[in-house]
Formats: sequence, structure tokens, C-alpha cells
Amino acid sequence: MDAIARHLIAEYYGCDPEQLDRPERLRPILEQAVVEGKATVIKTSLHQFSPQGVSGVVILAESHLAVHTWPEYGFAAVEILVCGEAPDPEASHRYLLQQLKPSHHTVRMLQRGDLQTAMRYFAAPSQA
Amino acid sequence: MDAIARHLIAEYYGCDPEQLDRPERLRPILEQAVVEGKATVIKTSLHQFSPQGVSGVVILAESHLAVHTWPEYGFAAVEILVCGEAPDPEASHRYLLQQLKPSHHTVRMLQRGDLQTAMRYFAAPSQA
Repeated sequence: MDAIARHLIAEYYGCDPEQLDRPERLRPILEQAVVEGKATVIKTSLHQFSPQGVSGVVILAESHLAVHTWPEYGFAAVEILVCGEAPDPEASHRYLLQQLKPSHHTVRMLQRGDLQTAMRYFAAPSQA
Repeated sequence: MDAIARHLIAEYYGCDPEQLDRPERLRPILEQAVVEGKATVIKTSLHQFSPQGVSGVVILAESHLAVHTWPEYGFAAVEILVCGEAPDPEASHRYLLQQLKPSHHTVRMLQRGDLQTAMRYFAAPSQA
């Protein structure tokens, strides 16, 4: 399989609930995680929920990085989706571990899209 | 396992390359997909890449929906991450299939975060 993109998906448990509830503290962490992963920030959106929780999504030149937090559980759902060879989503993940300090985490890597399958089903635009 | 969130991840092959390259056509499709899935749009961000390709991310009250397109392969990477019982990410996915009309697709559903694990590692904030 020749993947079009790579999707790192991680669960962070036992994080500091206060840190998870502050978008202004999370923004520079997410953006630096992108830099650590050799990717490029296009646009960052953070949203604070009531009574608690933050969603942070960074659109990248290479796809996106997203963190959703549940301070009431000390939990954050983390993902980094990147295309191309250059980005290193594991490096972004290692930086996020250093910053969010989960006492336990799990991680999995998905291959997204198969290039051979894409070319088999590709329908070129009809010529005008 | 008592999942904190559900993550539907799909690969759409053989889509119309022209449709995949137009953020103004994708925006209402993504936002209606959220409605079909009984979720709530907070904020939609679309970005068009040069020479081609679109990233569309909708922050939801329930997490996010994201579509990244590769018109050069007729390929779109789709995902819908939701917390809570009410949202129906399969319904969002069915609507996206109707609109983007891939000639082939694959789909998988991930459980994100285990509530029992979260409570085991939860560190309540220290009292001031």
C-alpha cells in the first residue's frame, strides 16, 4: 500500500484539567507541535465550550492537527493527519506529550488512502 | 470499552476532480452533512491549495468533521469525530457519499478514549 496520507491518532489520559481548559495556553502548544513535526500552519481555530472543554484545530499545508479536550476526565483526543514524506507526526506527538504530560497514553498510526486504488478509480475531467 | 468519542474515517475514490477543487461548492455539502448527522456547526474553515486541493474543517459542538481533497487523484480523505450519543456520523457519511459520489469507498469506525481508563488516571485539580 502506497498511502496518500498518514494519520496519527492518540489518546492522552491523566492530563492537567486546568491546562486542558485554556485555549490561550493550548494555541502555542499546538502550533509548536506543528513546527516540531516539520509541517506548516495555515490557520488555527480554537473554541472553548461551556461549561468546559476546548477544541483546537490547525489546518496545515499538509492536512490538519486537532486536539479535543475533556477536562472533566483529564482526557485529550489528539490527531495529526499529514500528506507527503517530509512531515514527522511522531515528532509532533512527542512534543505534545512533553507539554500536556499525560500519565498514560495510547497511539496508533493509520494509512489514509491508497495511491494505486486512487489511480484505478480516477476519472479524469471530460475535455470541453 | 465505554468510548468517549466515535471517529468515522473514510476514503473516497473516483470523485469528480472539479468538485473536489471548489471550496465554495464543498462548504454547503460539509455543513449539511453535519446537520444530517444530528450535530451542530460551530465554525467552518476552508482552504484552497495551489495548484489544487482543498482542506475543509468544521468544528462541531461535538468535535469535528474534516475533508481533505486530492483532485489530481479524485480522492478525498473524510472524517467525522463526535462525542455523545445523539450524533449519527454514519448519516453524515451517507450524505457525503450522495454528494461527492465516489465510485469506490472504504470506511472504518474507531472508538476514541475509554472512560474507565480516563477515570483511573484522572488527577483532580489541587484545591487552592
